[in-house]
Amino acid sequence: MSSVPPVNFTLLLHGGSGRLHPAGTPFPQEADYQRTLAAAAQAGFAVLAGGGSSLAAVETSLRLLEDSPLFNAGRGSVFSHAGLNEMDAALMDGATLQAGAVAGVRTVRNPISAARAVLERSAHVLLTGPGADQFAAEMGLETAPPEWFRTEERWQQLLALQAAEGSPAAPAPPAKYGTVGAVALDQAGHLAAGTSTGGMLNKRYGRVGDSPIIGAGTYANHVCAVSGTGHGEFFIRHAVAHDIAALMEYRGLSVAAAAHRVIHEKVAPAGGRGGVIALDARGHMAMPHSTEGLFWAYVSADGQTGTNVCHMIVE
Amino acid sequence: MSSVPPVNFTLLLHGGSGRLHPAGTPFPQEADYQRTLAAAAQAGFAVLAGGGSSLAAVETSLRLLEDSPLFNAGRGSVFSHAGLNEMDAALMDGATLQAGAVAGVRTVRNPISAARAVLERSAHVLLTGPGADQFAAEMGLETAPPEWFRTEERWQQLLALQAAEGSPAAPAPPAKYGTVGAVALDQAGHLAAGTSTGGMLNKRYGRVGDSPIIGAGTYANHVCAVSGTGHGEFFIRHAVAHDIAALMEYRGLSVAAAAHRVIHEKVAPAGGRGGVIALDARGHMAMPHSTEGLFWAYVSADGQTGTNVCHMIVE
Repeated sequence: MSSVPPVNFTLLLHGGSGRLHPAGTPFPQEADYQRTLAAAAQAGFAVLAGGGSSLAAVETSLRLLEDSPLFNAGRGSVFSHAGLNEMDAALMDGATLQAGAVAGVRTVRNPISAARAVLERSAHVLLTGPGADQFAAEMGLETAPPEWFRTEERWQQLLALQAAEGSPAAPAPPAKYGTVGAVALDQAGHLAAGTSTGGMLNKRYGRVGDSPIIGAGTYANHVCAVSGTGHGEFFIRHAVAHDIAALMEYRGLSVAAAAHRVIHEKVAPAGGRGGVIALDARGHMAMPHSTEGLFWAYVSADGQTGTNVCHMIVE
Repeated sequence: MSSVPPVNFTLLLHGGSGRLHPAGTPFPQEADYQRTLAAAAQAGFAVLAGGGSSLAAVETSLRLLEDSPLFNAGRGSVFSHAGLNEMDAALMDGATLQAGAVAGVRTVRNPISAARAVLERSAHVLLTGPGADQFAAEMGLETAPPEWFRTEERWQQLLALQAAEGSPAAPAPPAKYGTVGAVALDQAGHLAAGTSTGGMLNKRYGRVGDSPIIGAGTYANHVCAVSGTGHGEFFIRHAVAHDIAALMEYRGLSVAAAAHRVIHEKVAPAGGRGGVIALDARGHMAMPHSTEGLFWAYVSADGQTGTNVCHMIVE
């Protein structure tokens, strides 16, 4: 018999950060968010419980969040300045450092699955624009028409923001970042991370944020797995996801201390708000955020489970 | 009078890595490479000597290399599968962590200047595709027609590779990476890094490599400035440029030790070949490479200068 303790395999996901819902006021969609986050976490955990890879578990969870109109990813993505849904996603295998990402895709139904196809079936890491959609189609991934991604709420958000642009008052910075992400530790002790987003409302000029940038919004290695959500430009400049891994490996910080330092002592003082979920190779979790809230859910082999859709005090 | 010693302000650039030229055989273009690299280094150094910023010095050097047909950046870029020049560039200011990058641009004459415009005149870090070209044009940057970027040598390389794809023998991996990059330390003690490339010959699906990815092919902070050249996918997976900075800051390694470790002990064993130029805040340089050679040139305030266009033994 082996004396190696069983791995506390874990699936942890986020559904975005920001002013999710003010404390003490009615939140009509609370049950929907709760149910969807919990179901996505359970589905990814079931992959792990069945002996599946952390990579497969992350993809499974994120496909469910992409298919939900509640989050800014896949169906329900925000609209770009041109009135299009232009989506980004990335997936990374911490055991091999293999990674795949797509930016600016418009026709693949599940961008996270396109990222997995790039990881497993191409020689590349990052594919962009119509070429990325073409690759996904050639790989046989399911496509979807523009109507699939479109929700009336997101369309009204675009119209409101564009109307405000014409007024003297500058539009307020976004109060909510609906990006989704997941990190997982499988029974083999391997970590993986993935992130999927519709990006920034009203974005122009082919703007790409941190989600599909390996090292910024998404990173996994033998030390930790990280997925971010927030003001993407700051996450890129600070190489947030890789910096958390580096502080753990090179300085010996815990996942909680490393993630806290990067989010609260580096990115926030520079003016960047957001949060991350991070998981180490022993199943320890961290979900620091400098925004008012962070939607998350997790399921662990040790029987722990949790879902947060409520207002949270800034740490 | 100040007792602070003067900064050993320095401009260090590279013109790509690979099998640049076999030792002991004639190299007809040697004088052209030597002259162009040295002139670009001197031009950037002149900006520093005049009190200009490291950011401006890096841009100045890279514009000259982009305008030369000798390198795979700007004029002289390799062709994509579709027969187009699709270029990437990034620029980062180590003093502020401000960064700008473009990917897949086709009409802006100097992609590195487009990256600077993104850094200084947009709220974003990464713009892609036609939107990035549109942004550059709206900022008043000079455009150029397809003929400007096209060289007959690059076109023949595309035809040869595409012909080989139809044969039973798989095409050989690229023996040379002609990406250009520069790092600089200015009189104020501020570092900057920039990289510009035409990417991978015969690339498809909107493939983007490491050059425009902040943290992968390009990074600068208060500790060091790094620009890479090589097999971009490996540079992304290993977050090469940020990892060098992290090893210096968190482990106390010298710039030489940190750059050597990442290139020779991490990326090369994983199968990725290439090199970096790296510069610390005291003007110490490193240019490790796992390829057969690396083109580089530098000029320092202490009077040192050097240019390398020769075959070099793998370190």
